[in-house]
Amino acid sequence: MSDAQEPRDPVVRLALIGAGRIGRVHARSIAADPRLELVVTANPTVEKAQDVAAVAGGDAVSDPDAVFAEPYLGRIDGVVVASATPTHIGLIGAAARHGLPVLCEKPLDLDLGTVRAAQERLRDSRVPVVTGFNRRFDPSFAAAHRRVTEGEIGRLEQLTIVSRDPEPPSADYIASSGGIFRDMTIHDFDMARFFVPDIVEVTATATGDLHGDHDSAVTVLRGRGGELVTVINSRHSAAGYDQRLEAFGSAGGLTVNNMTPTTVTSSGSLSTGAADPYQVFFTDRYAEAYAAEMAAFADVVRAYIRGHAEPRDCDPAVPGFGDGLAALELAAAAEESVATGRSVQVS
Amino acid sequence: MSDAQEPRDPVVRLALIGAGRIGRVHARSIAADPRLELVVTANPTVEKAQDVAAVAGGDAVSDPDAVFAEPYLGRIDGVVVASATPTHIGLIGAAARHGLPVLCEKPLDLDLGTVRAAQERLRDSRVPVVTGFNRRFDPSFAAAHRRVTEGEIGRLEQLTIVSRDPEPPSADYIASSGGIFRDMTIHDFDMARFFVPDIVEVTATATGDLHGDHDSAVTVLRGRGGELVTVINSRHSAAGYDQRLEAFGSAGGLTVNNMTPTTVTSSGSLSTGAADPYQVFFTDRYAEAYAAEMAAFADVVRAYIRGHAEPRDCDPAVPGFGDGLAALELAAAAEESVATGRSVQVS
Amino acid sequence: MSDAQEPRDPVVRLALIGAGRIGRVHARSIAADPRLELVVTANPTVEKAQDVAAVAGGDAVSDPDAVFAEPYLGRIDGVVVASATPTHIGLIGAAARHGLPVLCEKPLDLDLGTVRAAQERLRDSRVPVVTGFNRRFDPSFAAAHRRVTEGEIGRLEQLTIVSRDPEPPSADYIASSGGIFRDMTIHDFDMARFFVPDIVEVTATATGDLHGDHDSAVTVLRGRGGELVTVINSRHSAAGYDQRLEAFGSAGGLTVNNMTPTTVTSSGSLSTGAADPYQVFFTDRYAEAYAAEMAAFADVVRAYIRGHAEPRDCDPAVPGFGDGLAALELAAAAEESVATGRSVQVS
Amino acid sequence: MSDAQEPRDPVVRLALIGAGRIGRVHARSIAADPRLELVVTANPTVEKAQDVAAVAGGDAVSDPDAVFAEPYLGRIDGVVVASATPTHIGLIGAAARHGLPVLCEKPLDLDLGTVRAAQERLRDSRVPVVTGFNRRFDPSFAAAHRRVTEGEIGRLEQLTIVSRDPEPPSADYIASSGGIFRDMTIHDFDMARFFVPDIVEVTATATGDLHGDHDSAVTVLRGRGGELVTVINSRHSAAGYDQRLEAFGSAGGLTVNNMTPTTVTSSGSLSTGAADPYQVFFTDRYAEAYAAEMAAFADVVRAYIRGHAEPRDCDPAVPGFGDGLAALELAAAAEESVATGRSVQVS
Repeated sequence: MSDAQEPRDPVVRLALIGAGRIGRVHARSIAADPRLELVVTANPTVEKAQDVAAVAGGDAVSDPDAVFAEPYLGRIDGVVVASATPTHIGLIGAAARHGLPVLCEKPLDLDLGTVRAAQERLRDSRVPVVTGFNRRFDPSFAAAHRRVTEGEIGRLEQLTIVSRDPEPPSADYIASSGGIFRDMTIHDFDMARFFVPDIVEVTATATGDLHGDHDSAVTVLRGRGGELVTVINSRHSAAGYDQRLEAFGSAGGLTVNNMTPTTVTSSGSLSTGAADPYQVFFTDRYAEAYAAEMAAFADVVRAYIRGHAEPRDCDPAVPGFGDGLAALELAAAAEESVATGRSVQVS
Repeated sequence: MSDAQEPRDPVVRLALIGAGRIGRVHARSIAADPRLELVVTANPTVEKAQDVAAVAGGDAVSDPDAVFAEPYLGRIDGVVVASATPTHIGLIGAAARHGLPVLCEKPLDLDLGTVRAAQERLRDSRVPVVTGFNRRFDPSFAAAHRRVTEGEIGRLEQLTIVSRDPEPPSADYIASSGGIFRDMTIHDFDMARFFVPDIVEVTATATGDLHGDHDSAVTVLRGRGGELVTVINSRHSAAGYDQRLEAFGSAGGLTVNNMTPTTVTSSGSLSTGAADPYQVFFTDRYAEAYAAEMAAFADVVRAYIRGHAEPRDCDPAVPGFGDGLAALELAAAAEESVATGRSVQVS
Repeated sequence: MSDAQEPRDPVVRLALIGAGRIGRVHARSIAADPRLELVVTANPTVEKAQDVAAVAGGDAVSDPDAVFAEPYLGRIDGVVVASATPTHIGLIGAAARHGLPVLCEKPLDLDLGTVRAAQERLRDSRVPVVTGFNRRFDPSFAAAHRRVTEGEIGRLEQLTIVSRDPEPPSADYIASSGGIFRDMTIHDFDMARFFVPDIVEVTATATGDLHGDHDSAVTVLRGRGGELVTVINSRHSAAGYDQRLEAFGSAGGLTVNNMTPTTVTSSGSLSTGAADPYQVFFTDRYAEAYAAEMAAFADVVRAYIRGHAEPRDCDPAVPGFGDGLAALELAAAAEESVATGRSVQVS
Repeated sequence: MSDAQEPRDPVVRLALIGAGRIGRVHARSIAADPRLELVVTANPTVEKAQDVAAVAGGDAVSDPDAVFAEPYLGRIDGVVVASATPTHIGLIGAAARHGLPVLCEKPLDLDLGTVRAAQERLRDSRVPVVTGFNRRFDPSFAAAHRRVTEGEIGRLEQLTIVSRDPEPPSADYIASSGGIFRDMTIHDFDMARFFVPDIVEVTATATGDLHGDHDSAVTVLRGRGGELVTVINSRHSAAGYDQRLEAFGSAGGLTVNNMTPTTVTSSGSLSTGAADPYQVFFTDRYAEAYAAEMAAFADVVRAYIRGHAEPRDCDPAVPGFGDGLAALELAAAAEESVATGRSVQVS
């Protein structure tokens, strides 16, 4: 609860498109922040939108386009897009045309050409688009990034990211996911770029068969300064959601360890110091990150309203449309590397 | 966000008396829970109550007694007491007379006789009174307690509680605190009773001088079953709020470790595996505990409304008035032990 | 392997009295150090002495007194006493009369009067007597002590020692052990004095029944400077030999953690970060300590030969006869405190 | 100290060729084991051999070939080769011709063709040759391997090896080292094969410039069963010798963590839980491994004397000549992958 003396941020009014799992996460973040207001939630199955509205407030509609028309246009300051992936680019465009900043879930689209074309169309727009790479807002990853940037470990030389999902997704999910690199590693590609923005080469190896997709992959990225980034992925992890990072530099290293639900450890005749399994759901692991992401988006909206520029100009930690495109390009390069057995140069 | 299918808990309407530091923590818990409503906040300096109301909702009044009169009586289901300690017993009595369940901050009073007399008066009342021993609701302490109760470590033989405040309080605070045992160790006495309810002997040693009070103490409690509970206290801790527990049993042990703001560790030429300092403010360390405590109080209120019995009959984890009294009795026994150099028997 | 350039320590020739478990540990330390030579081992059951000699070298005899006669007198520089406790004081006296430095296992004797009388008799002797408090030589305890002494944690305010044996001893062992405080806690009393030499008060609580002795105890020692030392003992520990220490000071803290046979941890669906159980045998846990203790004794012998003074004058880390007596006095005070329910003042 | 009842292993008599840093490590292992005897040490600078002999026993000679002639032939059971790399293959051949088992330091040679030709010549010999991949004998790596083999983590899917030297070697050392893959990663290639014997593909990326060699590398190995092994190397590490391994399987994972000189951790206002830097010298980190390696070699010699077969037939943990060759082949494949930017298939 902020003290009475501090200047209050103006309330930001938002529309939410998509009331699925991730949409509900965003609704909860909006409801819990007294400086945010949920004006309307749109979802094709309107009952889901109504369920969100009952708890987080606002109206419920079935048609996403209703958000950009009366009576909502003029009553909202920004749009949160959490609908199905193929609708992302269209909704970003609609929001931009109406001068509404957007927070859009990843991936922007599965097709690289579609995203590149959209970037062309957005080139002259000054409406900010934030890509939902929530992990940049996780307190631990953000702290590690800040400390590396401040020079604590000297020159960054190696970055190792371990990223394993707790449970493999269903065959249906896999079929429309775009594959492990576009669906799952894309978060790690963005994390790689968070620490090493200028990646010049991608080398990937993948094995396993999960409904026609790989379920185990190692990707090595080379940065322009000689940094080596290693991303280790698995579609399953018996111990829970395994999300770690190690930044190794000339003067030392920083490690982001996993989170557990409690700080309890047990000791007995078989083992000692045994902690809980890691959190199983990404919504638990990244609960704080999602709240911070929404707060950062609200700051972007406020800056835009006050006439400021693109988010990447205000805060390098806020991933924009270009970051969403760059991560997708790395995913495509990784696929090419697996297919050809060659390292792939990227610009 | 709960799924649409699950039966909704009825909304519980609350009055908050006290808008200081801990009162604001409670207001935040109420505001963040969609099944709770803050109807009115009372505080002698009404501006503080207004500040709470501006963010958490409801009215603001200066007179605590206004809560028990029109227009609030009949519009509230329970009362949260977070005012100055000397007002606690009177407000609990007023709430009980009006049939309103109470969540009251610890200590119930600094004077043991006053609390015993109040217990006499409450003997025939069936209005539940919950004492604000928030640590019982901390996910880690609660998990350790549940696992001990389930027999994971066999027979509980030794319990070690380390409890150190990050910074010593001011001379003014000390003067009206009732001393280290009634003000600080009282939380640990309740934690001891959470694990070992039947304490029969208290032996305490205290040293240091902080504005006329001790600032370092070790208290050993003996349970009826031979359990030895050791409480180690300090009024300061350079590394932050140090709150740990180790339960040792015939088949193994459970440890509750400290919390850190992030999971980042660093390694360099001077040290390895270095984590953050512990959280510094109790409101950060116990943020989840305070929210869970409020949710548990709401359950008590709902059970009372439906005609159910005392909280201690529903859930042993919810500390009642008797638990507040018992902790105070252990504090008085510890003081006597320090003064006489003898172990003190308690019943 | 020492480099050729460094000056070599002269070889120290030793007699070993006692070829039981601890005697064999000492023989191994002597055999592994090229600057030490085992001249003779004495043990009533001479086959045990022969077994030691076969591996570690030297002669084997049955009579301990043979060590102080031809042909050994004049061929040995010091004596290691690892025989039964009631023989310790007599053997120390014999060695002192023959001008032979002694390393004697703890406890010096179970009877306080006997040890005090021996101290009187040794008053004018300049023959060094080292008491076998091996834990002072453990690399971790020694490092923590050094860092506290160097001021790393500011003023030392609280010391917490957890000391739990892996398995309870037999009824026979208990019967002649002198009780938990003289047999087991005596090591912790010496560790307490290692960090806080000037103890002024002892308060102890003990419970449990193991063949007529307590098996669970908490002892609180108060130092002259207000330091509070807490010793937590159990005669068993499912997780293995539990030997920890926490030094808490005005500027921070130091913790000595347990040792595990490997650095392997495991993670799975039930737990994460699970390490091995702690080492089970004290000879594993303190293997390095015993070797370092023998090396320190050899240094004491060399200094004595060169005409230097008592060990306590050369290195405060080397416990002398007075340290053995002081630990026994704390054990007696703890027993009195348990018997009377009072704190006991010591000088 | 072994008990009197257990059957004694016969003493194994050894010659040591090479009295440099690693030769002295081996001499120390031999001297500390009462079932091993050092008969002669050969070193071109005979003073170094004499220094070894003075402490570990035996004769000192300057000519390595003297070991295979009177008076030593017939008085030794095996040979330990710790001389300069270019002499390894020749000395292995000489030992084999004289029917003497060999423990030879890695790498067998820098030239793959030379090693392959030697393997042809050794094809019909039944004299065992053990390659000095000491890490297989480290208690932690060995325990992890055993637990994986026993199925504790289900099917092994990913293996991640972090291997970083504490300090970069000199320009002279680099010039004759054979490059990072043959000199440093070769240990990790053997560790990879210890867990995943059948490697089919090598993909490597290397950066940095250290006296003309790379100083940072990531190698990804693919096993026939789809296992992905990642090796992360650096020629320096501010925190000390960084030697870790993570085995990830379908049912859980096992991690080998770093070792520190003590178990002490410190906490203060800047950090908590800070441990020592890792051990800096490989002779400290792998002290137990070198002793266990020598003991395993002695077992191989004893089995050979009793008429048993090749070491790989007795114990899969003991690396033979073929393992030395296989690691070198992976190193050559990694070099080719870096040069061509392609994955390299191996058989």
